[in-house]
Parts: sequence; C-alpha cells; structure tokens
Amino acid sequence: MSLTEQAEVIATAPTASKGPTVILTGDRPTGPLHLGHFVGSLRNRVAYQHEYKQFIMLADAQALTDNMDDTNKVHRNVVEVALDYLAVGIDPAKSTILIQSQIPELAELTFYYLNLVTVARLERNPTVKTEIALRGFERDIPAGFLTYPASQAADISAFKASIVPVGEDQIPMIEQTNEIVRRFNRLVNQDILVECKALVPEIGRLPGTDGKAKMSKSLGNTINLGATAAEITAAVKKVYTDPLHLRVEDPGHLEGNVAFIYLDAFDPEQDKLAEMKAHYVRGGLGDSIVKKRLEVVLQEMLAPIRARREALAQDKGYIMQMLKEGTMHAREVAARTADEVKAALGLSYF
Amino acid sequence: MSLTEQAEVIATAPTASKGPTVILTGDRPTGPLHLGHFVGSLRNRVAYQHEYKQFIMLADAQALTDNMDDTNKVHRNVVEVALDYLAVGIDPAKSTILIQSQIPELAELTFYYLNLVTVARLERNPTVKTEIALRGFERDIPAGFLTYPASQAADISAFKASIVPVGEDQIPMIEQTNEIVRRFNRLVNQDILVECKALVPEIGRLPGTDGKAKMSKSLGNTINLGATAAEITAAVKKVYTDPLHLRVEDPGHLEGNVAFIYLDAFDPEQDKLAEMKAHYVRGGLGDSIVKKRLEVVLQEMLAPIRARREALAQDKGYIMQMLKEGTMHAREVAARTADEVKAALGLSYF
Repeated sequence: MSLTEQAEVIATAPTASKGPTVILTGDRPTGPLHLGHFVGSLRNRVAYQHEYKQFIMLADAQALTDNMDDTNKVHRNVVEVALDYLAVGIDPAKSTILIQSQIPELAELTFYYLNLVTVARLERNPTVKTEIALRGFERDIPAGFLTYPASQAADISAFKASIVPVGEDQIPMIEQTNEIVRRFNRLVNQDILVECKALVPEIGRLPGTDGKAKMSKSLGNTINLGATAAEITAAVKKVYTDPLHLRVEDPGHLEGNVAFIYLDAFDPEQDKLAEMKAHYVRGGLGDSIVKKRLEVVLQEMLAPIRARREALAQDKGYIMQMLKEGTMHAREVAARTADEVKAALGLSYF
Repeated sequence: MSLTEQAEVIATAPTASKGPTVILTGDRPTGPLHLGHFVGSLRNRVAYQHEYKQFIMLADAQALTDNMDDTNKVHRNVVEVALDYLAVGIDPAKSTILIQSQIPELAELTFYYLNLVTVARLERNPTVKTEIALRGFERDIPAGFLTYPASQAADISAFKASIVPVGEDQIPMIEQTNEIVRRFNRLVNQDILVECKALVPEIGRLPGTDGKAKMSKSLGNTINLGATAAEITAAVKKVYTDPLHLRVEDPGHLEGNVAFIYLDAFDPEQDKLAEMKAHYVRGGLGDSIVKKRLEVVLQEMLAPIRARREALAQDKGYIMQMLKEGTMHAREVAARTADEVKAALGLSYF
C-alpha cells in the first residue's frame, strides 16, 4: 500500500469535513532512535507533515509506567529523541513536537476516561496483555500500566487526531480509544471527541542486525540514527546474512538475510540491487561484497543525519525553545478539548 | 476522645515541625448535606479552621466515578454543598474551599501515583471492596472506581495534609495514601510528600430518622441542614423511637431510640435531657413529649442555619467568587506539589 492509497482510506474518517485532518504520532523517550524507527515511522512523518496537521508526542509520562526506577533515562532521552526528529527532517514549523508530561490536561482527560472503561475491559486488551507478559509483571501490574489505554485515548483525543500511525500490534489500543470516544459522545449526547483510524505502515518492522525480528536497544542489535561512521562499520560487519552461504560459489538465500532486507529498505539504486540479489541467489557473490554495498548505502544515508544531529546538539537552547513552543501550542489545543469535555460533564463553573 | 485529645495525637505527625499543620476534608457533592454530615464532620470543621490550615474539597470529579449518568446532579450540588458549608459557620477567610475538578494538578498527581500501586493492591483495599459490593459493579467495575485510592492520595498529598478526618471505614484509604507517599519519597530519595493520619471523630455516624444505621439521601431518612420548619416537623413526627413503648406508663428503652440519640447529639440542655431519659426509662413519659422537645431543639438549631443559607443563596455571585478564590489558592498549592513531584521524577524541562 502506497502512502497515497493510505491517504485515500483515511479520507473517509468521520472528521474529514471539520478543518484539517490531524495525525498523532510519537515515541516513548527511553533511548535514541534507530533504523527501525526510521523505517517504521520517522520516514513517514517527514511525508505526513506536508499533508496533515501533525502532532508528535514525546511520551515521557507514559514511559514512566515501566521506568519508574530510571527516571533520568527518560529525561535525558527527551532531548536525544528530539534531536533525532529534527535530524531526519521533521520540521518544527510544520509538525508540533510536544512533551507529554508538560500538558496536565492529558492526565485530566485520562482521569475522566477511566470512568468510561471497566477493569475487565482493560484486562482483556490484547496489547496490554502482551506487554504485561513481556515485562513479567504477573500479579504485580502497576495500575498505571493496566490503565494506559485510557491515557492513550486521552493523548489521541486531546488533539482530535483522526489518524494514528501504529504497528499492527497496537490496533487494539486504537479500538479501545474509539470505544471511549463513542461512549463519551453518547453519554453527553454531543460530538465532542473524534474517532480515529489506525494507519499501519506498509513496511513494518525492521529486523535487528542479528536477524532477530525486532531491532531493539535492549537486544543490542540496533544501528542508531546518530551512529558514528565506525559504529556503522562495526554493525554492518556483524549483520546476519545466510548461514548456509559458506563459500562464495554457493547459492545464497535472501529470506531472513538482514543485509538484503536493509538494502531493500535503504538502497536508492533498486535496479542494481535486483541484479545483485539474482547473482547472490545463483551463487558466486560473496557476503563481503553485499556488506560493502550495505555499508556504502548506510554511511551515505546516515552521514547527513549525523551531521545535522551533531550541529543541533551544539545548540541545546534552540532545541529546548523548539520543544517549549511546540508543547505550548499543543497544550492550548489539549486544554480546549479538556474544557469541552469538562463542560459537557457539568464540570464548568467560573 | 475530646477534640483536644485528638489534637495531641496528631502533634506527633511527621510534619508537625514544617509550617502549619494542614487538614484536608471534603464531600462528594451528590446531594445537600444533612444532620449526619453536621455531626460527623461539619461541626468539627468549624472548630478545625481555628487550629489548622484547612482545605475543604468539593470532590465533584470523584463524585463522577459513580455518577457519570447524572452529571447535572453533581454540578448543581457543588453550590448547594457550598451553601451548607457557609451556613454552618465554615469561614472562607479561615478555610480554603475548593472544587476538585478545577485543579488539573490533582489528576496529574493521580496519573503518576498509579505507577506506584499495583492492581492487586487496589483490589485488596477493603474500602474499595465494600464500595464495589455496595454499588453492585461486580466484574464491570469502572477503572476510575478501582483506582480512586490513587486519586485520594493525590488530593491529600497535593495539599501536604497531615490530618484527614474520616470515618472508621475509610482508614484503609489513608493507609493506601501513606503507602504511595512512602513509596514515592523512597523512589526519589527526597521527603517531598507528607504522610497523613486519619482523624476519626468521637461521634461517628448519626442514624437515619427511621432508625437505620446511616442517614442517607437514598434511604429518605435524612433531615437536611436547609430543611424548612415544616419539613423538620414532618421528619420529627416519623422519628423512630421504642417500638415496645406502647403506652405512656410503660418503661421505655433508649438504645436505638433515634429521638434520644438526636437529643444526645443536639440538645444544649444536657442536664434536663438526663432527667427526661430517666423518666422515659422508668415509664410515664410519652414519645410525644420527647418528640416535642426534639422538635424545639432542631428548629432552634436549624433556623439560623436555614436563614443564613437562604440569604447566601440570594447572592450566587458571592458564592461563585468565594469558590473561585478558594480554588485558585488551592490550585497554587497543588501546582507547587505537582511541580516538585514532576521535577523529582525528571519531568522538568523549561
């Protein structure tokens, strides 16, 4: 599915007629962003900002739900992730970058939405179930973790986003948001909140350099967007290819071959890549040649990103000012929604 | 236990040395207040305001946790309850009266505290268990209802209250608050939040006019503080006495006899009351004489309250201004705490 096709699907969203279409995306700032984020979301956001009113949230408050023991990490990474955003071409003049914790109205909406969802419903949420299992919480689930779908519903609905780019595994969260939205609108008998649609990107998940399904900092199989040239070289050397491809003359396999998966995703010369793949499959092409090409592609792609990132990192004042302005603008929008929600609930007095 | 003795118990609270002792009380504004509230809390608050820095919260947001279907009722009763407060002698120059929903920082603190309490712990909370059973929620417990101990912890700790007057049944909520407070302070390794003590009033619950253990609007066995003279007369007529006391000459029983329980609570002439009780017990004193006395006592006690209430109700502008000022002051205090909490969690940027 191309971006244009996706946009067509979305044109049927219920709010298409009321002002610009709003899109909400974001990240939990728990580490610097890497190639997996670039493919799965950042690249698309650079495109979305020309088509939609885009809010990009640094979800520091949500990150705390399972990082209460390392709050410094979250604080530090807010700036790191903001640098990644600007370095890949997200333009603060076109996209609103905001820090979640600095908008109390998001917590306020969460508070009210908690009355619109039952404990049993939260416990049935497949995404929450999976995440709970992943983290090994068992019976000691922090309440903030069980209730985070209500918080996500608050984030999405505060900005009246009708499009939310998410991975396949997050679709139940979008359904949960829409349930809350519908329940609220029905309760107050007004169309205040806006339903949203999940936008699942065409290229989903990029595997780790070790061939594992997911690129993840905790697995140590990432290539960060700010990686140095030496780090890229080292990472490419370790990239998982075809374990059956022992001698150059052997036929190679493309499936699960991370070098080729990355080349598929990033090589600008896809025709030459097709030839290279054919050669590899019939035999006679060594992994070292493939990796050489991969290294060229990654170094060329990441060099300007790294340069922009380093230049921006010199001017922390600018980054903080940009975050402040984005957050202030976002807060105005969220406060308007919170006011509407509270007024509809009869919680408006002065 | 006299008020003075209670105050002594409290002098050992951990914050006694840091500035004035803060007390937090409040009501869910779901109906006008009645004699039960007067005995159980209002009368004490009039005394507390001379001894402590007192915050009185109109818990409209919390009232919504089980009144989402009747938000108008909550809105309307915010003003009614405020009128009750002033009519009984709570002085807005001495006590800060605030509207919970107008202080987003309370929702914000709730949001973070949800990470400090597990779902299992909330489910074990005896107060929550009882309330869930009372409301017949069974498996369909709204998440906001299960998590309201975190919200109460936010209300108490936002104002750094070290004393919280509560009924016996609410003591588990205070324990829950202190668990969250300790867990937070330990986590950030700073003494930011303040532990609190439950202050259980000497005279607890006033029975209903029908003899049922609790005076409650839903049971129709209340006498409201704003009751008209005719309503008081009608209510006194129906007051439950001694069902075995059939003839005047029969010996009467005092136990469970609501007329005498009310006289114990309200008759300013306790010596004469002692004589009357003795007479009733040995026989020869009719219920009609007892009720006559009760009516005099209640009419005399409630007439000035009603008059003040009616006068104040004429000036809604004044009431709203008073609520606004109290809420603004309270918000400053709560925002300061929220800022401290967020800074300690690393959520401070600008």
